Formats: sequence, structure tokens, C-alpha cells
Amino acid sequence: MKDEQFYMQHAIDLAKLTVGQTRPNPSVGAVVVKDGVVIGTGTHLQPGQPHAEVYALQQAQEQASGATMFVTLEPCSHYGKTPPCAKAVIDSGIKKVYVSTLDPNPKVAGKGIQWLKDEGIEVEVGLLEEQAQDINQKFFHFMKHKRPFVTLKTAVSMDGKTTANSGDSKWITSIESRHDVHVYRHQHESILVGSKTVLRDDPQLTTRLPHGGLNPTRIVLDTNLSIPIDANLLTNDQAETIVVCAKQADYKKEEKISSIDHVKVWRMDTERIDLVELLHRLKEDKIMSVYVEGGSTIHSEFIQKELFDEIHLYMAPKLIGGEFSKAFYNQLGFDQVEDSVQVDFKNVEMLGPDLKITARPQQKEVD
Amino acid sequence: MKDEQFYMQHAIDLAKLTVGQTRPNPSVGAVVVKDGVVIGTGTHLQPGQPHAEVYALQQAQEQASGATMFVTLEPCSHYGKTPPCAKAVIDSGIKKVYVSTLDPNPKVAGKGIQWLKDEGIEVEVGLLEEQAQDINQKFFHFMKHKRPFVTLKTAVSMDGKTTANSGDSKWITSIESRHDVHVYRHQHESILVGSKTVLRDDPQLTTRLPHGGLNPTRIVLDTNLSIPIDANLLTNDQAETIVVCAKQADYKKEEKISSIDHVKVWRMDTERIDLVELLHRLKEDKIMSVYVEGGSTIHSEFIQKELFDEIHLYMAPKLIGGEFSKAFYNQLGFDQVEDSVQVDFKNVEMLGPDLKITARPQQKEVD
Repeated sequence: MKDEQFYMQHAIDLAKLTVGQTRPNPSVGAVVVKDGVVIGTGTHLQPGQPHAEVYALQQAQEQASGATMFVTLEPCSHYGKTPPCAKAVIDSGIKKVYVSTLDPNPKVAGKGIQWLKDEGIEVEVGLLEEQAQDINQKFFHFMKHKRPFVTLKTAVSMDGKTTANSGDSKWITSIESRHDVHVYRHQHESILVGSKTVLRDDPQLTTRLPHGGLNPTRIVLDTNLSIPIDANLLTNDQAETIVVCAKQADYKKEEKISSIDHVKVWRMDTERIDLVELLHRLKEDKIMSVYVEGGSTIHSEFIQKELFDEIHLYMAPKLIGGEFSKAFYNQLGFDQVEDSVQVDFKNVEMLGPDLKITARPQQKEVD
Repeated sequence: MKDEQFYMQHAIDLAKLTVGQTRPNPSVGAVVVKDGVVIGTGTHLQPGQPHAEVYALQQAQEQASGATMFVTLEPCSHYGKTPPCAKAVIDSGIKKVYVSTLDPNPKVAGKGIQWLKDEGIEVEVGLLEEQAQDINQKFFHFMKHKRPFVTLKTAVSMDGKTTANSGDSKWITSIESRHDVHVYRHQHESILVGSKTVLRDDPQLTTRLPHGGLNPTRIVLDTNLSIPIDANLLTNDQAETIVVCAKQADYKKEEKISSIDHVKVWRMDTERIDLVELLHRLKEDKIMSVYVEGGSTIHSEFIQKELFDEIHLYMAPKLIGGEFSKAFYNQLGFDQVEDSVQVDFKNVEMLGPDLKITARPQQKEVD
């Protein structure tokens, strides 16, 4: 099966390997092939370091002349931290380039392809495009919608409960599900919880994986600055923390909190924290993704305002029941089923004994 | 791939075709093969009619001599409504028989196999056994546990709600899910709801499939005989109805209800309807399976007492939310997560836009 799909699939696998670690850049993979022999492979590893195409061409050396390149994203055409890849491709003598998907970045957006074509290189766009876009889902989203990609994560029992009657919630899901959550922390630029979660669980919200991982910026929605000064998010400096409060919050408390090195306070102009405004500020701060871990009040607001791009529901094989147990979308809600928020189920998988259900907002049909 | 699996798989497919319509008998399929040529196939169609082996042998005629038979269930050895199949197999001259699974019926239970062996026929047991047992899940369960197989069916939104805030529940799930529910009505011998469901929805609880279907016996748990005399279950005589009441229920109402031809009243000896006692009475009545459609009070009791064998959760891609919306296991429940009822997820599939999640009680590990 050594056809175009075969080589592009490997380029995609190379890109997948680095999801999360290249931000703010996208993850990209490249494979160079000549006469059925792979003569170079590369993946962009970290911001500021060479792009995928450059590594692959370095390995191919003079053999690149007349060869074919498979690359998951359109080669860049602008001078950033590194020189443009399109130029490197042209200089190498590559004859044909398969590009999985165009770069949504307006600085590139087809210009890379055009440059290659102008130099007489044959270009084909669209091979395994959906996969290539999925890898850089958050990057594409940010470029297109100009706001961070929002993932709502929740863990429930089979009967939809996030706690038992007493409020107890440890541990609904399995170690496999909790591991998966840490992978997503690594892949998001920020993680968001409400002050109630901090007051109740005092979490660290760091990424704890067997081989380490990047920590997302921690965001707490704390209308009245009610979290204690010795909360883990304020004392643990492994990651940045942003405490978001409303306009009436206590100034002395703000001063105290914002004097901590790794902590910032964002005071909003309103009496309640407005999520649209918050997402706008995150965008201004170049934060491309938010992993919302709860609790129920926060989830309810993101859902009600339809400010989410993906829901990850980890469902444990347990039946908890009870009238005082909680669901993840208890607040607000609708009187009629037909008014409810529509989603599409995108994926289901088993994680140990649990199910992980991924949903996205329903694609509106365009007339 | 014309090996033993290939032929047995077809025998299993033949058996699957008739699930529900052979009760109280199990569904069985048979294929007879000689020199790589299929010379007979059969499936048991309806109680009182010939068994699968007989049809297959009728088609094979004298070619059966020296042939191999693949049959999903051990051939019967007793004289019932039809003569024993083991005898027909022996008389036909069949040389070898692959049996997928033994008959759990104590009247057969290995005797059929023994008889074949005694006559010099080579017998192999166990090919695709799990599939063969799954086809007759309810039959096997009844023979083993001496109580009906209980399936709890519920339809929820992604956030676990069975109604919106107003109590509205139409239509949470899709037409594909509702079709699936009617398939299961056809496959169960009885269907059970609480009186609240009758008072609120006045359902017919019949099987409505494009090509028709068998109607299960309808059971209403109605402690105080509160359902109206003109309820669909009492006026529609397409299926039997059993109204179960407690000992204090009104005798005049009982008289009125039980005077209807297709309706029986079961008065329990207790002030509340005891599910264990109810399942015992159903067993005495040779009802091998119960499809519990709700509502929440009924589900809660079956779950809390762990009196269920399968849960079918139809999940719609909707977020309903709300503090007054209902979950399917609201009553009772547990204070601590660790005390909850454990299940195993057995299967997940898409039905149109919905997910169908099948769970079974957790297999207890034996030391």
C-alpha cells in the first residue's frame, strides 16, 4: 500500500506526535520520497525550531532534487522566527509537493502554494485533509473564529451524575480516563475552573503524565475573589494562574493575589463575569484553547450560551442515582426538549472500563 | 474462508433471523455440508413447527449420509411437540456434528450430544459459543437463574435527562432509536411500566415495526389501581395486559378491570409491590423476559435492588439541563460514589444521530 496515502499518513502521524508542544505554531509532519525510497522525514518540534520540511530536506540533502514531498500543512511563505519553508523546498529541487491542507493563517493562506507553483513545482492539495485539520483543530479554529477553542470536560456515571448524594465525586472515572484528561491538559493552552471547585478540591491543575507534559495556564473564575491566598493555584508556581473577578471585587485582595509572581488578576468591567468578554481577552492574550474542567455552574453557562467547540464526556460504568446528586448541566436548562442545545456525537471510545463520548455543536445546515 | 467458522456463522445468522418469534423455544439455525457444498439449511420458525435440524435434513435428503451438520444449539433428545432432533440426525446418516452450545434446558443438557456420540457420530461443541448463547440470552438466563431476564430501557439527553424542566419528554431520541425499541418489544415476552407512565402518556405498548411484530404482554405496576378504565392498555386488546396491585387496592376497581377479556389483575400480599415476588410470579407464568420502559421510580427500584440483566441507554445529542428536569435513576441513590451500583459497558453503537449504550451488571470476580 505504498501510495500517496501511505506517505501522507506517515507525515500525519509525525505531526500527531507533537500535538500540544508546538504552540502557538501548528503541528506539522513531512516525508520526502524518491523512487519509492523515503529519503527524509521531519516534524516541527518546538516554537523557534526548524519546521518539518526543513528537517526532512536536511536528511535528503542533494537527493531531494527531483523528489516528492508529502507535508501535512502548506509550507509557510513568510519570514518569522525561521526563514520561509517554501523557499527551502524550492532551493532543494523538489519536483512535486503533496499538501494535505492549506494554512488558515492569513499570513500564509495559499501564498506558499502559489510560490511553489510559480517556480514550476507541481502541487496537489487535499490528501487526507480532514485528518490534517483535526491535528491542528485548535489552531484552525483560532485562525477562523478569532476566539479560543473551548473544550468542556466532565466525568459522569451512566445515569449522568457528577456527584453522589453527599457531594462526593471521588473517583467516578477510572485511572485510564484520568490519564486521558492529563493528555488534554498538555494539549490545551489554558485550563479553566470556577472558584467553587478551588474552594472544594483545591486542585493543582497541572499536567501529570508518566513522561511529563506542558502545563496549561490556569484560569479561575472568581467573581468576588473568594479563593484563599494559600490555594494551590496561588502557591504552586509550575504554571501561570489568571484569577478573573468582577468589577466589585475587593481591591486589597486583588493586590495581595497579583503580587504573586506567577499570578495575574483580570478585573472585568461588569458585575458578573461575561464569558464572551473573557474569551475576547484570552484571544488578545494569544491563548488559543481553553479546557473547561467545571464545575456544573461554569459548564451550564458555557452550554447555555453555546460557547463550546467540543464536549468530552467520560462515563463510568456506575449507577449513582439520588435526588441530591448533581448533573453537569443542572443550572438553567430548558422547559421543552425541542429548545435544547443540539450537538453531534463525533466519537466514542472505551478507556479502561469507561466510555469517552466526544460531541461537537451541531453543524447548522446551510440552505 | 469456507471453514467451520464460515458455516457456523451462517447457522447463527439463520438463528438470529427468528429471535423473538420462537418463544418459549430458543432460536436455532442449522447448515448441512458435504464435500464443500451446502446441501441443506434450516431455522426453527415458530413453536410447534419443525426444528432447524429437521428442515436442513429434509433439504439434504439422502445426501445427508456422510455429511457434516453445523447447528447452533445441541439437538434435543426429548419428545415434545415434535420428535427429538437427535434421532433425526442419527437416522439421516450424518457423520459429524458441530454444536455451538449445549442446551441449558435440564430436559436436554448434554443428553442430545451423548445420544449422537453413542451412535458413533463425531461431535464437536463450542464453535462460536458466545454468539450462540447471546442469540438466546433470555432463554439461557431463564434456564439458569429461574427468573425472567430484565432489560431496563431508557432514553436520555447527553446530560442524562429524561425530561425537560416542564416534564416534556417528546421526542428526546430519534426515529432510529424508537425503531430499535420496537425491535426489543418484539423480542421480549413482556413489557413493564408504572402507573404514572400510563396516567401521563396513556401508551399502547404494542410493537409497531414496518413489517409488524409480536406484542409483549403488557404489565402495569399500579399499587392502588389508579389507572382509568379507558386507558389504552385496557381498551386495546392487541396484547394481554396484567395490572399488578397491592393488597389494599380497591376490590370494585379490580372487578371492573379484570372483567375485560384480555386483562388480568394480580393482587400482591403486600402493601407495596415487591419486585422479587413479581418476578417470581412472572416465572411461574413462564414469562422469560421483561422489557422495563420506566418511568424513573420503577427504574430506580430495579437498579437499587440490582434486579436487572441489561440496561439500554439511548442517548440523544441534546443538552437539556435544568434543575427540574429528570434523570432515570433519581429516586434512592447513594451518598458515596464507592457505594454505587457497578455495571460493565458491553456495547456502544450509533442509531442515526443517537448513541445506544448497553450495560450489564458487573461480573463479580470469583476467587
